[in-house]
Amino acid sequence: MNISNYIDYALLKPSATEHEIIELCHNAKENNFYSVCVNSSYVAVTKQLLVETDVKVCSVIGFPFGAMATKAKVYEAKLALENGADEIDMVINIGFLKSRNYVSVLRDISDVKSAIGDTPLKVTLEISELNKNEIIRACEICLDANANFIKTSTGFSKGGATLTAVKIIKKTIKNNAKIKASGGIRDYETAIKYIDAGADRIGTSSLIKSSTHAHQIRNTKIYRKYIETIQKTTDSAKPNNTIKEKEV
Amino acid sequence: MNISNYIDYALLKPSATEHEIIELCHNAKENNFYSVCVNSSYVAVTKQLLVETDVKVCSVIGFPFGAMATKAKVYEAKLALENGADEIDMVINIGFLKSRNYVSVLRDISDVKSAIGDTPLKVTLEISELNKNEIIRACEICLDANANFIKTSTGFSKGGATLTAVKIIKKTIKNNAKIKASGGIRDYETAIKYIDAGADRIGTSSLIKSSTHAHQIRNTKIYRKYIETIQKTTDSAKPNNTIKEKEV
Repeated sequence: MNISNYIDYALLKPSATEHEIIELCHNAKENNFYSVCVNSSYVAVTKQLLVETDVKVCSVIGFPFGAMATKAKVYEAKLALENGADEIDMVINIGFLKSRNYVSVLRDISDVKSAIGDTPLKVTLEISELNKNEIIRACEICLDANANFIKTSTGFSKGGATLTAVKIIKKTIKNNAKIKASGGIRDYETAIKYIDAGADRIGTSSLIKSSTHAHQIRNTKIYRKYIETIQKTTDSAKPNNTIKEKEV
Repeated sequence: MNISNYIDYALLKPSATEHEIIELCHNAKENNFYSVCVNSSYVAVTKQLLVETDVKVCSVIGFPFGAMATKAKVYEAKLALENGADEIDMVINIGFLKSRNYVSVLRDISDVKSAIGDTPLKVTLEISELNKNEIIRACEICLDANANFIKTSTGFSKGGATLTAVKIIKKTIKNNAKIKASGGIRDYETAIKYIDAGADRIGTSSLIKSSTHAHQIRNTKIYRKYIETIQKTTDSAKPNNTIKEKEV
């Protein structure tokens, strides 16, 4: 399985240098990653470095606390689009959620979504700060706000993604939004487990490559999908026995 | 010594609830702290809670990474003022500093300073991310940008304030800007040490009160200043011998 199309390749630490951003973009091109994910002060230079490639630019917004005023998040998001961002990863206002001020949580997300239109919006829940009920409630609000992705973690809190949380999120949102698992995912095998649990995108600062041991991973969604592909190919190649049998 | 006028009383964790903000403001009023320091999504409510008090409202900007685009920092700062902030604590762009892109570091700070005019601007260096030379360079740039305070730390990085760093900062900026020591300062005795080393403001999330053991702390700037005050009072109370002696 080629995992590259699932990867948002991230460099988000505050000390990241321009040299490291160049290296990030180089690696993303070499590995055909889906996107690179950077802080908004690096969006313009990142876009320049990736021009004429298929690698998208993803900007984080209100990162990593999500505690900045909604209007400021909206402004930062619009500015990121102007500077070339193709996707926006915002952080939910955790304090508002903990305060059960759901209207403000909703407005925070929906104002950003309205401002960026069709641009994919990922909303980071920071699951390590939330209990199960808060995760479910946050997911419901994200759907109400027309978010495109639920993202587990910033990678800068107490903890990162967990399979349990991804399963809770999947069960809550079903196919009404996608899932990005991020925070602490550093190798192919772990990434595959998350995809199998329902993740549509993987956020990582590690150079995850398709493993040479990929064939050893069975009983995964990816593996089963591959099996289906083989079967379909085989079915279409051979005479259509099923119909013939019915005709008989 | 009454330390309350040195204290920026902070609640900056992303999970801070409205209830905790109310408690923060209550404590700040009770203790006559100089200000409360909050994320920008809480500036408006904090201002309301502190109306008709002397406690100022301080908003953090680009917090805690400082890696957001300059224009977004400017917007967030102006919005904070609109919502009632009296002081602005921004975070320097550490990545630009590490990249030796000093023009961008300067522009980042001076654009915010220009936008907020006479409002005091504190610039957080995040000293735990910097070496000695980087701290000195950052201080010089802050002075060039007309920053009012150099602030040591966000309190959310590898480390907080250090006495060594405060001394380096003081030696570099002399009396051309003030110093805010923050991150890991949790009691009166520690706060006094920082003030003695040159700090004009203390950022803390602890309820620091003037210690009953304050009289035990000698050989500090505060102590010496107090001695001077006593001497002046004594001098002005008694007949002006000095002048008389000169006149003689």
